[in-house]
Amino acid sequence: MQQRKGSLLSFRPDIKVLDATLRDGGLCNNFRFTDEFATALYKMNLAAGVDYMEMGYKASKTMFDREKFGKYKFCDEEDLRKIVGDNQTDLKISVMADVGRTDFRKDIIAKKDSVIDTVRVACYITEIPAAIEMIEYCANLGYETCVNVMAVSKARDEEIDSALEMLGESPVDCIYLVDSYGSLYPEQVAKLTLKYLEAGEKYKKSIGVHAHNNQQLAFGNTIEAASWGASLLDCTVNGMGRGAGNCPMELLLGFLKNPKYHLPPVLRFITDYMLPLRESGTVWGYDIPYLLTGRLNAHPRDAIECVRAQNTDYEAFNRSLLEKD
Amino acid sequence: MQQRKGSLLSFRPDIKVLDATLRDGGLCNNFRFTDEFATALYKMNLAAGVDYMEMGYKASKTMFDREKFGKYKFCDEEDLRKIVGDNQTDLKISVMADVGRTDFRKDIIAKKDSVIDTVRVACYITEIPAAIEMIEYCANLGYETCVNVMAVSKARDEEIDSALEMLGESPVDCIYLVDSYGSLYPEQVAKLTLKYLEAGEKYKKSIGVHAHNNQQLAFGNTIEAASWGASLLDCTVNGMGRGAGNCPMELLLGFLKNPKYHLPPVLRFITDYMLPLRESGTVWGYDIPYLLTGRLNAHPRDAIECVRAQNTDYEAFNRSLLEKD
Repeated sequence: MQQRKGSLLSFRPDIKVLDATLRDGGLCNNFRFTDEFATALYKMNLAAGVDYMEMGYKASKTMFDREKFGKYKFCDEEDLRKIVGDNQTDLKISVMADVGRTDFRKDIIAKKDSVIDTVRVACYITEIPAAIEMIEYCANLGYETCVNVMAVSKARDEEIDSALEMLGESPVDCIYLVDSYGSLYPEQVAKLTLKYLEAGEKYKKSIGVHAHNNQQLAFGNTIEAASWGASLLDCTVNGMGRGAGNCPMELLLGFLKNPKYHLPPVLRFITDYMLPLRESGTVWGYDIPYLLTGRLNAHPRDAIECVRAQNTDYEAFNRSLLEKD
Repeated sequence: MQQRKGSLLSFRPDIKVLDATLRDGGLCNNFRFTDEFATALYKMNLAAGVDYMEMGYKASKTMFDREKFGKYKFCDEEDLRKIVGDNQTDLKISVMADVGRTDFRKDIIAKKDSVIDTVRVACYITEIPAAIEMIEYCANLGYETCVNVMAVSKARDEEIDSALEMLGESPVDCIYLVDSYGSLYPEQVAKLTLKYLEAGEKYKKSIGVHAHNNQQLAFGNTIEAASWGASLLDCTVNGMGRGAGNCPMELLLGFLKNPKYHLPPVLRFITDYMLPLRESGTVWGYDIPYLLTGRLNAHPRDAIECVRAQNTDYEAFNRSLLEKD
């Protein structure tokens, strides 16, 4: 029988907190954050003791129109430096790079010339070889690398085992358990975390967790994974992220016992920046349509459209999902 | 090592769902629900397969002014019958009776003359003897009885052990684990549930769980308790309840696998009744001030006042809580 790692009152020095507000939150507003917002968020993360700040995606400029998205979709070096300078701090800067949507050979430069510390490669479980190609490329350039294997709630156990073996043999530093659809219950998160940790122990990789809040379980699932040994914990301020959003930073920092973490700067930032962002019309967070896709283990796209259209006929929306299923 | 009871795909015939919308939700609007709302809720509970509908409190009319509260604060027999008739259904009708705030010898009539099936006695852990007096009185009248020992997150282990022994010896049918402050994490809920279940097995009592959503854990904690063997599960439609509210019925019925439960009527009711209720200005649900009292294991009254006053200076509010602590 596996034991939980540490107790509720202890603190685990292996735990690191990653702020994905600009990245996952950027999916709510096409990455159109002001410089003032991003700068204040950077300062907040420093004051709160957060370990990683994810600035956005390294999206291909041939595939995505620069005019249609804010700069955090692309994370050009000069744009990042405008916010973080040379980042002479303990806060690591990360970016996400989607398999198949990143011109990584062109857009990811040598680590020594970049303010970025960590590249997180996101892929579906069928794209592991392509992800490993990117991981090897980035690791050779000098970056810390993570891999976020999305939507594993749809994958079969043997696919996950195989993916973990392949990633174990790669130079990746951290493998993320990602609940893209917000469909996993804590018992399932516990089992998957133990599976990931088994591979992590064998291959010396740390394990991370990235949760979505479709069933109001993003925080619960994150601390469940952490309690078994996951050590990289994703969150966003106020839970801002695609659809139902993510694990709220304020809940996570309110829970973690490591005295390096400080909640008051997060509270201040919510008052000064997140409330105005919501008032300006940016929408995220738990809502009935997200519950309905989450419990069916379905992509949230239909729920996002339902919420966007302010369609509150939840019974009919649920019926339409069941007909597709 | 204790085992969880059943699996995520099984269904447990011992599990019963209690709708506390009129009762805990009544704390948000002084119990001023229209007859139309209550009647539609009753019909919805029947259609959804819910096991218990709690109609409100049996509050003392000498202590509380009838003019200041809606009728669900008092649950007079004729008021209940106006909604549920003689209730010739499988849905049980419950009321809550607070120790020290109920003229139970006057207001609780013989079961044979009442449409009420179940009396739930609510008390603090220091009031167990008074609760047992009420439980014995109601049991003698023919009612099923439950006891909700509130705020056990503040109680010491030996107090809980002693309370469980005393209640075990009483005629009560069900003992509830109640997280009044929304401060418990799932690991703590698991441990407490196992403690309650131990007494429950010894004395042949079922165990219930009533959660609050201060840390977005009401649903997670409810299914955690259920997974170990708690069988009476409280919820409210849309999570409507004091402060951060309760476990949302739509999440719970979306999770339970017993085919007797039906989600669509709940979705319809949310659209037709809960959204208008929110739009009319009734406020409940997760918000930062509730997180802040919850994580400090404090009564939500300051948070309720903070939200009511639309005070969004969360950092200052948190400081004021820490100064009180």
